[in-house]
Amino acid sequence: MIIVLKRGTDRKTIDEFSGALKRTYNVDVNEWQGVNETVLGLIGDTTTVDIGTIKAQDIVYSVKRVQEPYKKANRKFHPEDTVITLSNGAKIGGGNLTLIAGPCSVESESQVTEIAKAVKESGATVLRGGAFKPRTSPYSFQGLKEEGLSLLFKARQETGLPIVTEIMSEADIDLFSDVDIIQVGARNMQNFTLLKKLGKLDKPILLKRGLCATIEEWLMSAEYIMAEGNQQVILCERGIRTYEKYTRNTLDLSAIPIVKSLSHLPVIVDPSHATGHSWLVEPLAMASVAAGADGLIIEVHNDPPHALCDGAQSLTPEEFDKVAKKVTNIKSAL
Amino acid sequence: MIIVLKRGTDRKTIDEFSGALKRTYNVDVNEWQGVNETVLGLIGDTTTVDIGTIKAQDIVYSVKRVQEPYKKANRKFHPEDTVITLSNGAKIGGGNLTLIAGPCSVESESQVTEIAKAVKESGATVLRGGAFKPRTSPYSFQGLKEEGLSLLFKARQETGLPIVTEIMSEADIDLFSDVDIIQVGARNMQNFTLLKKLGKLDKPILLKRGLCATIEEWLMSAEYIMAEGNQQVILCERGIRTYEKYTRNTLDLSAIPIVKSLSHLPVIVDPSHATGHSWLVEPLAMASVAAGADGLIIEVHNDPPHALCDGAQSLTPEEFDKVAKKVTNIKSAL
Amino acid sequence: MIIVLKRGTDRKTIDEFSGALKRTYNVDVNEWQGVNETVLGLIGDTTTVDIGTIKAQDIVYSVKRVQEPYKKANRKFHPEDTVITLSNGAKIGGGNLTLIAGPCSVESESQVTEIAKAVKESGATVLRGGAFKPRTSPYSFQGLKEEGLSLLFKARQETGLPIVTEIMSEADIDLFSDVDIIQVGARNMQNFTLLKKLGKLDKPILLKRGLCATIEEWLMSAEYIMAEGNQQVILCERGIRTYEKYTRNTLDLSAIPIVKSLSHLPVIVDPSHATGHSWLVEPLAMASVAAGADGLIIEVHNDPPHALCDGAQSLTPEEFDKVAKKVTNIKSAL
Amino acid sequence: MIIVLKRGTDRKTIDEFSGALKRTYNVDVNEWQGVNETVLGLIGDTTTVDIGTIKAQDIVYSVKRVQEPYKKANRKFHPEDTVITLSNGAKIGGGNLTLIAGPCSVESESQVTEIAKAVKESGATVLRGGAFKPRTSPYSFQGLKEEGLSLLFKARQETGLPIVTEIMSEADIDLFSDVDIIQVGARNMQNFTLLKKLGKLDKPILLKRGLCATIEEWLMSAEYIMAEGNQQVILCERGIRTYEKYTRNTLDLSAIPIVKSLSHLPVIVDPSHATGHSWLVEPLAMASVAAGADGLIIEVHNDPPHALCDGAQSLTPEEFDKVAKKVTNIKSAL
Repeated sequence: MIIVLKRGTDRKTIDEFSGALKRTYNVDVNEWQGVNETVLGLIGDTTTVDIGTIKAQDIVYSVKRVQEPYKKANRKFHPEDTVITLSNGAKIGGGNLTLIAGPCSVESESQVTEIAKAVKESGATVLRGGAFKPRTSPYSFQGLKEEGLSLLFKARQETGLPIVTEIMSEADIDLFSDVDIIQVGARNMQNFTLLKKLGKLDKPILLKRGLCATIEEWLMSAEYIMAEGNQQVILCERGIRTYEKYTRNTLDLSAIPIVKSLSHLPVIVDPSHATGHSWLVEPLAMASVAAGADGLIIEVHNDPPHALCDGAQSLTPEEFDKVAKKVTNIKSAL
Repeated sequence: MIIVLKRGTDRKTIDEFSGALKRTYNVDVNEWQGVNETVLGLIGDTTTVDIGTIKAQDIVYSVKRVQEPYKKANRKFHPEDTVITLSNGAKIGGGNLTLIAGPCSVESESQVTEIAKAVKESGATVLRGGAFKPRTSPYSFQGLKEEGLSLLFKARQETGLPIVTEIMSEADIDLFSDVDIIQVGARNMQNFTLLKKLGKLDKPILLKRGLCATIEEWLMSAEYIMAEGNQQVILCERGIRTYEKYTRNTLDLSAIPIVKSLSHLPVIVDPSHATGHSWLVEPLAMASVAAGADGLIIEVHNDPPHALCDGAQSLTPEEFDKVAKKVTNIKSAL
Repeated sequence: MIIVLKRGTDRKTIDEFSGALKRTYNVDVNEWQGVNETVLGLIGDTTTVDIGTIKAQDIVYSVKRVQEPYKKANRKFHPEDTVITLSNGAKIGGGNLTLIAGPCSVESESQVTEIAKAVKESGATVLRGGAFKPRTSPYSFQGLKEEGLSLLFKARQETGLPIVTEIMSEADIDLFSDVDIIQVGARNMQNFTLLKKLGKLDKPILLKRGLCATIEEWLMSAEYIMAEGNQQVILCERGIRTYEKYTRNTLDLSAIPIVKSLSHLPVIVDPSHATGHSWLVEPLAMASVAAGADGLIIEVHNDPPHALCDGAQSLTPEEFDKVAKKVTNIKSAL
Repeated sequence: MIIVLKRGTDRKTIDEFSGALKRTYNVDVNEWQGVNETVLGLIGDTTTVDIGTIKAQDIVYSVKRVQEPYKKANRKFHPEDTVITLSNGAKIGGGNLTLIAGPCSVESESQVTEIAKAVKESGATVLRGGAFKPRTSPYSFQGLKEEGLSLLFKARQETGLPIVTEIMSEADIDLFSDVDIIQVGARNMQNFTLLKKLGKLDKPILLKRGLCATIEEWLMSAEYIMAEGNQQVILCERGIRTYEKYTRNTLDLSAIPIVKSLSHLPVIVDPSHATGHSWLVEPLAMASVAAGADGLIIEVHNDPPHALCDGAQSLTPEEFDKVAKKVTNIKSAL
C-alpha cells in the first residue's frame, strides 16, 4: 500500500503517523521524499488495512493498494483452476464448457420437465429454473416458491440433471438444502449476511455480478463466501448497467479473461439476462465461449410468448439446440 | 401502455393478441395503423401488466408505459406531502428541514453520546449511527452489532434524539424493534424479502437509493414497503455510480425535485457517502437544501482520523455546526 | 411517432395541436383516449420531426419514436450488406473478415514498413498507423503529422497494403487525398462539420463509436456522412466508458449483432483501444469475430516498450500472427 | 509518479529501467522493496512523462500519478481566482455571480433582441444564443449560421450585452472575431485542433464539459487552450451521461467545489442542457449557486413551444426573472 502525504506535512507528524501504522497493522513503513510530497510504502500483509481510515487522516493526499484485497479467491495464492464436480459427473471449470439451461420461472411440472429433457438432449448438464423471483415491482409474479422447488426436484429425478436456482432470503436456506447449486442474484451480490450464511454450507454457490459491481467488488463478495469456509464459488457475468439502453445491460466480456487471470474460480456467462433479447443470445453465447468462459447459463422456454417472466429473452428448445451446437464448435476451434 | 407491433403482422394474429390482452388484463385495446406499423393502446389499469411478457411476443416491436408503475408512492393518488412525526416532535417532510447526524460507526458510549449532544446542540433532531456495517471486504470492521444498538439507545436516553440505524438482515428485525427509524442501505435497496418484512412494521423506514438504481426502481422499492401496509417511507439520495472517480459517487441532485414531483414521500440527502470527502459535505449540503431536500443525513465524528470506518468523509462537531448554520440560512432564503 | 398528452388537456387545444402537426410535418394524426391521457400517433415520414420541439409543448407528457431516425444507414431501406472493395482487392463487409493492423503511431520508415510486411505476412489486408494523434495532454507526443503520412505512403508502396489513418481537422482533408480509408476518432464522432466534409469525398470512412455514444447516435453520425453523398462508411466499436476501471473502456460486443441488424454497414472492432492491455487483445478479438464482426483493427508494434504512444496495448508481430490464426479458426467455425 | 514493478523482476532489468527513466525524463528515481513488489518513485517534473509508455513496459504492474498533469490551469501554481472582465464591465469569477441567458437558437432579430432586453432587465450581463447548432441528426435545423451571428451583434448593439455563442469549426474562427466569448460545446471538448486555434486568440473561451469527460480530462482541455497562450478560460458544467434517463444528463454539482479547488478558473453551470426540462431549471440553478458556481447559463425563449430547438428546456422571460431573483437570494445567503 502506497500513501502519499499532503505537501507541507511536518517531520513530527510524519513520524507519529508512521509509528501508528507500524503498531496498528504490523507492517514496515518505507518513506521517501518527492519534490513536494512525502510517500510512505507499507510493507507486509495489508489486506486488513482499511483504506477509508487511512484516507481520513488530515495529512493524507491519496492511498493506493498494490496487493489485491482478496486472498482465498486470488489466483496468486491458488494457481490451479478450481473445478466443481456435480452429482451427474459434470464439471465446472478447468477447461470444461458447461451448459446450464432452463426456464426463467418454474411454472408447472410438465413445463419444467419437458424443458429439462430437451436441454439435456442438446447437451446441457445442469437445469436452471426460478422458484423465488426477484421482481422490480411488488405487483409482478413472484415465483411459485416452495412449490417451484419441488417441481425442480421432480425434473431432476426425471432427467438426472442437477439444478441451480436463486435464493432470495437467508431464512430459506433450509428449503434449499437439497438444491445442487444455489444462485445469488445480481441484486443480492452485496447482501453480506446472506453471503456469510452461504459460506457455511458445503455446496456450490453461483454468484452473479451485481448490476454495477466492479470486478474487484465481485471478487470480494466471493471472498465473503470463501472466508467462511465454502470454496465452491462459480462466478457469473450477466451484464452491467451503462448509458446504452438498446440492450437491458451491457455484457462485459472483458471481465472473463480478467477474472480468470485474477482468480482461480470458474466464470460463466448469462447472455439471456445481459441482453434481454432472445435473438442476441446466440451471437453473445458464441462470443462468451470465444472469450474463454467456462460455461453458459441460458433461458429456455417451451413457449416464450406465454412465459410468466422474461419471455422476451428465452430461446425455444430448438433454438437452444442450435446455440449448443454452435458454441461447441467454437469451443473446439479454440 | 402503448404496444408497437412488428411490420407485417397479419390481421388474424393481431386480433388474437388483442383479445388475449383484453381477457388477461381486463383492459380495453385501441388499435391504429401507422405507415408500416400497427400500434395498440391499452386503456385501463396497467400496473399489473408485465412488460416482459408483452415484449416476449414474437409480434411485438416495442412497449412503452404511459402510467407510472407505482401507486402508493405516487403523488397523483396522494397529492399531499407525507409528513413523519418522531418521538421528539421532529417532523420529516412537508416543508421542514430535518438534520440527521452522527458517526458512521458506533464505537463506544462516550463517543456516541458526546457526538449526539454536540449535534443536538447544533440543531440535529435525529441521531444516526451504524451498528451493523455493510463492508465490501469480509476483513473490514463489521460494526459493534447488538452492543452498538444498545449504545445508541443510551445516547437517545441522554439526549432525547430518536435514532436511525441500518439493518442488514431480516433476521435482525426483532433487535430493531426499539429503533426509531430503520435504514435500508443502498446495497439492500432491492433485497425484496427484507423490504416486505419492513412493510409489515409500523415504523419509519429510511430507504437509500441503490448505487445504480433508477429513480423509478427506487420508487418501486418504496412501493414494496408500502404495498405491505407501512406508509412511512423516507427516501435518501446518496449518489449514483458513474465513470467519474474523483468523488466516490456522483450526487444526483436532480433526483430531489423529480422525486418530489412524482411522489409525496420526503426525500433527504446524504452528502457524506455521496462524495466520500469531508470538505465536499458543506457545499453539497447547501446545494441539496437549495434543490429542495427535506433534510440531510451527515456523518459527524469527534475524531475523524481515528474513526473505525469512513473517517475520510466525517465532519467534526465544530464543522457540522457551521454546516447546520449555513443550510439553515439557505433554507430561510428559499 | 407517438405523443402522449398531459391529462386534462382540453378539446380545443388538442385540435389546434393536431392541426399544427399535420400542417408542419405533412403527416396524418391518429388520436385515441386512454383513461387519463390522450395519445396522438403521427402517421407518415417523421424523420424530420424534431422531438425537442414536440416535447417543448406545454401539453405534451412524452414522445416516442417508432421509426428509426436514420434512413441511408438503415437496413430496412437497403437490405443487402454494404461491401467496400479496396485497391488491393480486399473487401470489407459481406461476410468477409478483414484484418487491419499496424502501429498506434508512425515513428520511422523502417518501423512502419517492417510492421507492414509482418502483418501482411500474417494475413492483414490493411495497414493502420497514426500520423495525427489525439492526445488528452497538450504535452504528449502529437504524432509525426505530414511526415507520418508520407511514411505510410512509402509502406503502402512497399507492401501494397492500403492504409487507414486518423484525421483530426477538416483543414487537413487535402493532405488525406491519397489515404485509402480516413478514420474519424471517437472524440470526433460528433464533429459534425468534419463529418459533412468527409461526406463529400468518394473514399471509405472508418467511423469509431464515441466514448459515450449510443448505438443510435453512432448511426446518426454515419448518416451525416451518407446524407452528403458518401455511402462508404465502416463502423468501428472500440469500447464505451463505464464505471469499471480495470479496462480502459468496456467493449460492447452486443453492439455488433445489433448494428448489423439495424444497418447494412460493415462493423469492425478495435480490441486494442477498448481494453488498453495487450494480453486482452487475443480473447476479445476472438469474441468479436464470434459475435459477427466484419473485421478487426489491432495495434501491432515491433517494440511495444519503446512505442511513443499506447505501447501497453500493442502486440508484437509474433503475437499478432497468433491472433490472426486464431480468429481465422473462429471464423471458419462459425 | 509511482511505478509498481511486477513481482520477480530481476536486479539487472530494474537497474536498466531505472537508468532509462532518469535519462529520458530528467528525474530522480527512488526505489523500495515491498514483500513481493519493487516500487519506483519518480522525483521531479513528471508532467511530460507519458503514462502509456511506462505501462507498456513488460515489467510494470501499475503506475500512478502523484502530481496533476496540468500546470496552467492548476491552482497550485496560480492561487488567485482568474477573473474575466467583459466589455460591459461584467466580471466572471472571483466571487461574482454572472447570469448568462438567451435563446438556444437565434431565430430572428425581434426574437433575440426582445429576449436580450428582457434578460438584461432581470440581471443577466451576458447574452447567449446559438447561430451554429450541433444536432444529432443531419435532418434537424442546423442554425442560422452567419445570419445568426449578425442578429446577435444587433442585439448586443441594442442592449450592450456581450455575447457568447458556440463555434463548431476552426474554419469559422474569423467569423467569430467580433464575438465576446466563444463557446466550445460538449461534443468538441476534445477537438484538440480547435482548442489549439482558440488558444492563439485573445478572447474568453467558454469550455463545456464533455458528455463523458472526467474532471481531469476537462481541465486538460482547458490546458490545451492555455498552453497556446490564451489564459481566459471559463469552465461550464452541463451534466454527464449516466444510466439514469429521467433527465437528459446527470448534473454533477460535486464538480463545482472540486474544480474550484483544483483550478483558479471560473466555473459556471448550464442547468437547461443538463436536465432538458424547464421546470427543473429553477431548483438546479439554486443548487448550483449554493454549491459555489460562479455563474449560470440559462436558456430563455419568448415562446418555448415554437422554439426551433430545445424548447422543452427553455424558460420564458418571466420564469427567468423569478429564477434570477431566487439565485440572487441564495448568493446573498452564502
